[in-house]
Parts: sequence; C-alpha cells; structure tokens
Amino acid sequence: MATVLSSVQNEHVRNVLKLEKRRARDAERVTIVEGAREVARALAAGVVPVEAYVCPTLVVEPDAAAALAQLEVLDAARRTHLFIVTEEIFARLAVREASGGLLLLIPYVARMLAEIPMSAPAFLAVIEGVEKPGNLGAILRTADAAGVDGVIVNAGATDIHNPNVVRASLGTLFSVPICEATPEETVAHLRALGVRTVAAVPDAALRYTSAEMRGPVAIIMGSEAYGLSQAWREAADLLVSIPMHGAADSLNLATATALMLYEVVRQRGG
Amino acid sequence: MATVLSSVQNEHVRNVLKLEKRRARDAERVTIVEGAREVARALAAGVVPVEAYVCPTLVVEPDAAAALAQLEVLDAARRTHLFIVTEEIFARLAVREASGGLLLLIPYVARMLAEIPMSAPAFLAVIEGVEKPGNLGAILRTADAAGVDGVIVNAGATDIHNPNVVRASLGTLFSVPICEATPEETVAHLRALGVRTVAAVPDAALRYTSAEMRGPVAIIMGSEAYGLSQAWREAADLLVSIPMHGAADSLNLATATALMLYEVVRQRGG
Repeated sequence: MATVLSSVQNEHVRNVLKLEKRRARDAERVTIVEGAREVARALAAGVVPVEAYVCPTLVVEPDAAAALAQLEVLDAARRTHLFIVTEEIFARLAVREASGGLLLLIPYVARMLAEIPMSAPAFLAVIEGVEKPGNLGAILRTADAAGVDGVIVNAGATDIHNPNVVRASLGTLFSVPICEATPEETVAHLRALGVRTVAAVPDAALRYTSAEMRGPVAIIMGSEAYGLSQAWREAADLLVSIPMHGAADSLNLATATALMLYEVVRQRGG
Repeated sequence: MATVLSSVQNEHVRNVLKLEKRRARDAERVTIVEGAREVARALAAGVVPVEAYVCPTLVVEPDAAAALAQLEVLDAARRTHLFIVTEEIFARLAVREASGGLLLLIPYVARMLAEIPMSAPAFLAVIEGVEKPGNLGAILRTADAAGVDGVIVNAGATDIHNPNVVRASLGTLFSVPICEATPEETVAHLRALGVRTVAAVPDAALRYTSAEMRGPVAIIMGSEAYGLSQAWREAADLLVSIPMHGAADSLNLATATALMLYEVVRQRGG
C-alpha cells in the first residue's frame, strides 16, 4: 500500500534530492523522470519504477491520472514503492514547474551492446559524444521516428541518464534501445554482425545520398565539438558528407544525424 | 571618432537596456547582436550597425579584434556610432557571459516579400509560426546550409528579431533573407511567380521523398503547436508526409524542416 509522506526531512525525499547529482545517480544506477507525458511513456515502454512520488492534488491531466492508476497497480504488486506526498514536498522534488504531480525513480535503461536488438536489415546510430543533454534528447526523438534498432553512445562523458535527456527526448529514451560502448567494442561488434559503418564527415567526396545504405547499416556521427575521431575515420567502411551551402558549421549534430538516418529510411522505401 | 562612456546612467546605455523588451525593439526597429561570432557574421553579411558598444579589455579573440577594426572604419565613415565602454557598463549591457566585448545595435533585417531574391529554380521555406526563438534560429541554420533563397514567416506573433534568434541561428539570420507576410500574401506571391508549394502534414498519403521538387518550390511548414493551418492545407499545391515509426510527435519542427529542405537539395543533385 502507498506510503503517505508529510515531511520534507523524510529520508526518501532527501534521497531523491541527492539524485539531482550525476555521481549519486551513477552510484545507485537510478534516475529521475518527471512530467505526465514522460512518466506515461516510461510506463508504456514497460519501465518498472523503483519508487514513485505522487501529489494527488496536482494530478489533473487524463494522462497523469491513468499513469497514477498504473502506479497503484505496480505498488499493490509490490514492484514499485508508491509515495503520496504534499504539494510542499512535491515542489521540493520537482525541477520543472509543470510536472503534473508525478515523479519516478527508475533503474538505468542503458543496455549492453549485445542486448541491442537487430532487425533485418540492421539499422543503428552511433554517436561518438554529445555534451548537451538536450542534443542527445533531440537525437533520440529522431532515432525513434526513423525507427532505428538502437543508439550506441561511445563517449563515457555523455550522461545518458541525465533528467534533461529524458525531458528533451520526450520520453523516447524509454522506447529506443540505448547502450554505451567504446569505439573499439562497437567496431568489433558491428563487423562481427556484418553491419556496414557509414560515418559523416565534412570533407568526404561521397554525398550521403549516394551511399548504398539499404543493407545492414550503422550511421556514425562525431561529437559536437570535435567531429569524427581519427579512430572512426580509419575504422568506418564509408565516409560521406552532407552538402552545406552556407557557413561550415551551420548544421548541428542532431540535424545532421536526422538527415543521415532519414536517408536510410528513404533508400529502404520506408 | 569613438565616444568613451564611463557611466551606467548614460542615456545611450539606458536605451540599449530598454531594447531588451520586444516592444521597444519593434518601436525603434532595432535589435541587439552580442558575441564575437555573431557580430563577425553580421558585419560579413554587410549589416551596418547603428551603434556599437565595445569594451576593449574584453576583446581578446582574433575574430573580435577584426570586428573591432571594421567597426572603427564604419565609425570613421560616420556610418556607425562607436562607443568605448568600461567593463562595468559592458556587464550591464551584455545578456550572455561570453560576449567577447562586442555588442551591436542593428536595424531590423526582415525584408518585404518582393525583396526576397529568387534563384532559378526558386527555393523557399515558409514557416507558419514558431514560438520559441531557439527553434527559429535552428531553422535558419538549416535553411542557410540547404541554400534556400529565403525564409518567409507567416505569423505576426513570431519575434524574428529576438536576440535569442540571432544567438541560436549563429548569425545566419544575417545571411538568409527573411520576411514576414500573411499566408494570403505568400500564396498570391508564390502563385504569381509559378512556385510550387509543398506542405508537410502528418496524414498525407504522398511521401515527401516521392514529391517532385526539382522545379521552383516553397516548402510550407506548420507551427510547432498547431501544425499546418486550414488555409495552407487548402492553398498548398501538394501535401506530403514524413514517415514516423515512433511516437507521432517525435520529430520537432526544426528537424522536420531540415528533412524537407534537404530532400529538395537531394533531388536537385546539390
């Protein structure tokens, strides 16, 4: 049965506040999901929260009410610990203004490389590094729309489970399989599976729209700040470029990724 | 010759602060440009500032120093009024932390519909409405990269000259011709010029990659919040859709615009 909390000094409340720091999230491998839409998408994707914090007087949207009903079922099944909190406590926990009265603690969603499912033909996105959580969120939205099998993030510095990734991804972090792996692991894994790696660089002679991408393919994108690494330049099966008529840096990473992924969609007639 | 200012109470300083409000910008038809890169791009695009505020001790990047030299020439020619200000004044004027010691007041850059240049074949982007300045900035970056002739914004509510548009556009607001016009004016203008209007909607049967867009074309995009208006649904020559495999709202306006514009680039072999 749900636990009612009325003190902001409660240990559970204090634990959620601690999780605003990445170090605490990484230690517990748990992150925070806020907002009616994001919570609904997490639950729809089969995510089972460890804990849920609900302020009933703030639950007004139909989405939020439906999510609360699901959380009550999970709580009754002893899978999620549901806490009913005051508006004062909820205001302390929520970072966003319009959070719809719902906040979850969920286990990290990143998988192992071998756990990324592969359709036939495979369709993957590899992002070397992305500094801004908002940009990773935008890439996940596009990857979801393009129907990729999964997203592989190469840089250990990227904070995949940052709450701002969840927010900017509109919850697609839960529907798109994602993993972290080094470039070396990624290259070995994709080679073993016969997946062609196509990397975007500014200076390749081959246009991205002329590259054959109907077979199993992984799109490799460099980091926002440094572009494609030398390691990937050498390891990629194909280097391609996106034509740019204006200033050289006029396409941002998320936009360039969208163009590459949707070129695969176009070639496959999807 | 440049004027040295040392008091934050100076009338020119107070006038710049007033321009942080849209109403004051619209009344004077002048907006603010901050940042070494943005200032350099404005000057490179031939923008002649009305006034320039420079804090010499903060001008350290080579770009900024080159821009300052240009501003001194414009000041000597009595085309721009150059003010040399203290760090205290500059801190008061600058909204951004790293502004490189340069801030301009420039005339509004929006043109009349008839002043948008047309290449052969014409290539235009029409955005019905965009609420967030950051999204309009992102669209301008993409439009610049795709090499459009110009961007037409339909909604009067969009604040084209918001300083955040300048920032998010990385200064491409100065290189991409832009205008505001009603949908009716836009339809009449494009029809008179024989430009085909292709609008993106979620429910069209025709894929955007199957639409013929090699001739004179204008890509029509709805607003973030409401999608394409009924007026444009009826007026557009062609309705097309972008396939989406995930959640229905997973592509944002700037990403969808990028896909549409780059499909034109692809079809034209550019």
